[in-house]
Amino acid sequence: MSFTPSGKVAHQVIRLVPFTFRRRVAWGDSDTARMVYTGRFLDFVMDACDAWWQAVAGHDWHALHTRLDRGAPAVHVDMDFARAVYPGDELDCVVRLAKVGTSSVALAVVGEVAGQACFTGNLVSAFIDPQAMKSVPVPAEFRAQMERYRAACEATTVQA
Amino acid sequence: MSFTPSGKVAHQVIRLVPFTFRRRVAWGDSDTARMVYTGRFLDFVMDACDAWWQAVAGHDWHALHTRLDRGAPAVHVDMDFARAVYPGDELDCVVRLAKVGTSSVALAVVGEVAGQACFTGNLVSAFIDPQAMKSVPVPAEFRAQMERYRAACEATTVQA
Amino acid sequence: MSFTPSGKVAHQVIRLVPFTFRRRVAWGDSDTARMVYTGRFLDFVMDACDAWWQAVAGHDWHALHTRLDRGAPAVHVDMDFARAVYPGDELDCVVRLAKVGTSSVALAVVGEVAGQACFTGNLVSAFIDPQAMKSVPVPAEFRAQMERYRAACEATTVQA
Amino acid sequence: MSFTPSGKVAHQVIRLVPFTFRRRVAWGDSDTARMVYTGRFLDFVMDACDAWWQAVAGHDWHALHTRLDRGAPAVHVDMDFARAVYPGDELDCVVRLAKVGTSSVALAVVGEVAGQACFTGNLVSAFIDPQAMKSVPVPAEFRAQMERYRAACEATTVQA
Repeated sequence: MSFTPSGKVAHQVIRLVPFTFRRRVAWGDSDTARMVYTGRFLDFVMDACDAWWQAVAGHDWHALHTRLDRGAPAVHVDMDFARAVYPGDELDCVVRLAKVGTSSVALAVVGEVAGQACFTGNLVSAFIDPQAMKSVPVPAEFRAQMERYRAACEATTVQA
Repeated sequence: MSFTPSGKVAHQVIRLVPFTFRRRVAWGDSDTARMVYTGRFLDFVMDACDAWWQAVAGHDWHALHTRLDRGAPAVHVDMDFARAVYPGDELDCVVRLAKVGTSSVALAVVGEVAGQACFTGNLVSAFIDPQAMKSVPVPAEFRAQMERYRAACEATTVQA
Repeated sequence: MSFTPSGKVAHQVIRLVPFTFRRRVAWGDSDTARMVYTGRFLDFVMDACDAWWQAVAGHDWHALHTRLDRGAPAVHVDMDFARAVYPGDELDCVVRLAKVGTSSVALAVVGEVAGQACFTGNLVSAFIDPQAMKSVPVPAEFRAQMERYRAACEATTVQA
Repeated sequence: MSFTPSGKVAHQVIRLVPFTFRRRVAWGDSDTARMVYTGRFLDFVMDACDAWWQAVAGHDWHALHTRLDRGAPAVHVDMDFARAVYPGDELDCVVRLAKVGTSSVALAVVGEVAGQACFTGNLVSAFIDPQAMKSVPVPAEFRAQMERYRAACEATTVQA
């Protein structure tokens, strides 16, 4: 199952299928408990999903707004935490497409350190016209590319 | 139904029952879409819940760690977004106790601007011994105070 | 020396002259050293200066962009740290006008906990047309109001 | 001039001499002006300096605290901004050693996108015993390794 990125692939993307965004966890990400602050995990999820949009749809959220006058605001997020993450860790956020609806995109993220899952997250975004603040259909070319990404992920899983 | 705070009440707490934490939404909270960035809403939820622990249990999360050698890390969070929030808005986060279990505390937050709900969030924390990284029972005096808080909220709701 | 705010005054503004913005320091503001993370102090400075623009010029930075098509990006910031700040502290950021130039505004901030200075900061902003990304003169009515603010601060200092 | 890292080198370190930390600028890093929010630049500086400590001294700030019971809090930071940075940009933070004193370390950072300087920053840290909150001498082996790093940077500059 072939998948070719339609947008830029950043240095922190260490694997395309499944899409994996690596970051060094920073000093400032921790709190008094000496591990990553809960609130930062949502940034980790967001950053990986934004890079996924860039690679898969060819436009990250900034480009959606500034080039296409479109937006993809969150309507729902959730996260479950299984294992602490520490500054200095290299965290891999693995992004899978859960569902692309008429005007929504649901992504599922697993955060891993050294191959061990530390947390999972889900992000559901509405595809909108930001001037009207109304949902609009996900463009056909985005949907096609997202479905190719999903097929490539599924093919990879079967092989593994 | 009487409820007396057992800890410090910060200036931003504009009401005790239900506990309501007010903040001015900042320039830095926004993103290219010119409204609050998704990731910041979790900080808003966390900040309000931390202040709630201070007022209700008498110890915020920092005090739990530094004075009692206890912690309350998140095991689950979720948020649903209904209405955009903008820099300059005054956002009220209303915190209610959903459940206090043997070693967990679940809080439910509603974020309101001028009385209109903009988002809801849930935060489930485990009560732990941070040295052992093991859950331990919520102390009886915390539980009692949390239940008094819930009773006071319920009494208020009935009156409204 | 009279000074009347020309814009909205948020709940966290506990004093107008000198302008003082109070915040409860949050759990997420700390790091592994169990005190406020260096990077967050700049947010504290920015949040107070943004609220100052709202109260003094009548438009915060968001309003400058969305209502007036103007902007005030930072060209310089600096901070010096004297004393640690902890989650749960109530931090007062006191904002004074250092200088209003033809197209720049320099603000000086002191961060205090319980009346003790913990850090100082300076923020120099350029006043710009964001479409052209060119500096433009600070509008006369903004300048006049800022000078009234400075005069009121000086009068207050003399009295003290 | 030889320089061998004494600590872990993270994936985002794209060059050791001068030390260069690359990050994809994220959606959440922007504000209503549709470019990077001022406050985030300090995080960018901090994150790069923390990774520099890890590679050069063999311990990042988290390791200093949790393994050595030492700390390196900021006593001064400043930044000057020359050029806007946007979400999706790949930002390189180049870290040079300005000075290692008896108990202080001064780092100078240049932030570049596609080889063009966008901002500069300086971070002066005190080396401390965090229990006593007193400054202590930078350990000889840290100082030696930092000086080797500086020599290697200078040799590189001469060649360029």
